[in-house]
Amino acid sequence: MTLIDVPPGLAGVAVTDTTLGDVRGLEGFYHYRQYSAVELATTRPLEDVWYLLYEGALPTHAERDAFATKIAPFFALPDGVRDVLPAIATSGNPLNELRTALSLSGSALGLRPIWDLDEPQRRLDALRLAAQVPTLLTALHRLRNGDQPIEPRADLSYAANYLYMLTGEVPDPLQERAISRYLVSTVDHGFNASTFTARVIASTGADVAACIVGAIGALSGPLHGGAPSRALELLDAIGTPDQIEPYLRAQIVAGDRIMGFGHAVYRTEDPRSRMLKQTALELGGERAAFAVEVERQVLALLAELKPDRKLYTNVEFFAGVVMEQCGLPREMFTPTFASSRVIGWTAHILEQARERKIIRPAARYTGPTPPMPIPAA
Amino acid sequence: MTLIDVPPGLAGVAVTDTTLGDVRGLEGFYHYRQYSAVELATTRPLEDVWYLLYEGALPTHAERDAFATKIAPFFALPDGVRDVLPAIATSGNPLNELRTALSLSGSALGLRPIWDLDEPQRRLDALRLAAQVPTLLTALHRLRNGDQPIEPRADLSYAANYLYMLTGEVPDPLQERAISRYLVSTVDHGFNASTFTARVIASTGADVAACIVGAIGALSGPLHGGAPSRALELLDAIGTPDQIEPYLRAQIVAGDRIMGFGHAVYRTEDPRSRMLKQTALELGGERAAFAVEVERQVLALLAELKPDRKLYTNVEFFAGVVMEQCGLPREMFTPTFASSRVIGWTAHILEQARERKIIRPAARYTGPTPPMPIPAA
Repeated sequence: MTLIDVPPGLAGVAVTDTTLGDVRGLEGFYHYRQYSAVELATTRPLEDVWYLLYEGALPTHAERDAFATKIAPFFALPDGVRDVLPAIATSGNPLNELRTALSLSGSALGLRPIWDLDEPQRRLDALRLAAQVPTLLTALHRLRNGDQPIEPRADLSYAANYLYMLTGEVPDPLQERAISRYLVSTVDHGFNASTFTARVIASTGADVAACIVGAIGALSGPLHGGAPSRALELLDAIGTPDQIEPYLRAQIVAGDRIMGFGHAVYRTEDPRSRMLKQTALELGGERAAFAVEVERQVLALLAELKPDRKLYTNVEFFAGVVMEQCGLPREMFTPTFASSRVIGWTAHILEQARERKIIRPAARYTGPTPPMPIPAA
Repeated sequence: MTLIDVPPGLAGVAVTDTTLGDVRGLEGFYHYRQYSAVELATTRPLEDVWYLLYEGALPTHAERDAFATKIAPFFALPDGVRDVLPAIATSGNPLNELRTALSLSGSALGLRPIWDLDEPQRRLDALRLAAQVPTLLTALHRLRNGDQPIEPRADLSYAANYLYMLTGEVPDPLQERAISRYLVSTVDHGFNASTFTARVIASTGADVAACIVGAIGALSGPLHGGAPSRALELLDAIGTPDQIEPYLRAQIVAGDRIMGFGHAVYRTEDPRSRMLKQTALELGGERAAFAVEVERQVLALLAELKPDRKLYTNVEFFAGVVMEQCGLPREMFTPTFASSRVIGWTAHILEQARERKIIRPAARYTGPTPPMPIPAA
């Protein structure tokens, strides 16, 4: 068979068409459907964006209420899952625990292969599974810390409910808004490895849980998931304002990577960074002011010391600050990302299911020519 | 960004180089490294092929013994897994239960991101996780049926141990040889969707369990995993020898698909089919003779009624017969396939890990041009 050669890692290879959104790396712009994602994050709750990606249009007031009523029961854990969570919450790795627990939830919900379902049934399975993620993440977190899980509250927004299930306290409106912005801005972001994983599995017709469990696995990879907590570690390592300049100068001169700067796709400022910086400043406090000053000095020092290397602040830097301001512990930063991203993953699964074509590439065999005689054992 | 267009489903696109093996669909030939896979299946135990794929060469006697001694303890379940299995073995879906249980085993074994490990450490994690699969599958099967799991026995071959853990009885040598042939012949088969899934996840640097749990999800898709049990259902539906001809003629005239015939890659006889047919005949019995007669008449009727459509027997047809002859219940056919294929998946993960390059393709946005103004809520 004649093989088609493409760049390593399938970089730039268009696997499929999508109407869900895109990233324009050169412009520092990304969108969900036809709307600016950052603008959605500052004007709409997560539920509206969830609706937008599944249904193709933003909801009216009435549609939003109906959607909220519809999904509210899906946040409850199915029978047979809650009792097993204490045994799962023992690894110290929240994302791996989510992988196991969500796989179990998928079985308990009786999800069926998407190949065997029509569009409304697939959408229902996707909604039900995606709604398990915040409940499982927060329950596992509490169990790891010796606390009892907290039942979801249908009267709270997704964002407020997430913080409530985690901490047991209804967040103040500023925090709710801040986490909502973070969640909305991380729902989708092009055809990254976890999204692609979900779509490859979906292309076999497997159930939604099979796809999402695979995507969580991809997200757990050090080359993909990122780590907003690393930006905080940088702030901690610097310590005090007078140390910013000498610390950063030493790092940059040594050629060390500055956490929270640079992105695989953006060749300009990460649009999520700008929005989350604003959000951090609205929440206020010393940490936000310190982070802004560190960012300013990083960019100034890079311009001075590495004028050829254009590095910009990425989403991790201020995301870490905002999540800390909202009371999220660092080990929950990447899992919280999974909680919003699962909405994007499931939207991609629904789109892939409509293609009904398996993704099955090829590889070039480069070993010794077969068949060679098998030596005697 | 300029996108590269490729055929739908990435068909024929060479994602990577591999020295693990290849499938030559036009010739009806496939190989592991430089050796015929079918020849390996009839001359070598599964352990040798496992060694071949991980180490690059077939083992000597001394290497085989050392390998068997090394892997023997890995078949035991880690602490904290056994107690949870009864709660997992409640879904009625063995492959989904394996997905959950293997994810849990990965956490309990403390597997680390492959990105953080050197080659020997990665190989060890791969061995440990792959060895969990037969133990988990058979334990979950017994629990579903109200029986207690059976501990693995280090004095048995992989093939004999698999049947022993499933049934509680050491199989006779003919059955051991038959299952061994099936297992060896299904270890790897080109760059199918589950293998590709494992490699995409591995390309993010995630741990081996994350990769394998994703691959199991892909295998659970109706478009991928196949179902050797369907061939038996065909034999059951036909019933008696006198019904073969009228039943098949009616099906073919109606344009119905004949289960166990036709393959996405092979344009000639599936080499696995020929070998498993021989194995079925060696095991003997009425069922084997009936299957051979059904195959003969399917091919004769296809030649008469659909001379333009070249359809050949695929691996499913005689695999189902052989597994039944060895005492495997039908719901364990595809899971048994996962037990051998995990050796191929992990070999691909080890190969992918050496590339240290994330697989991150692209998609073409085809929706309305953004940004459009966001309507008022």
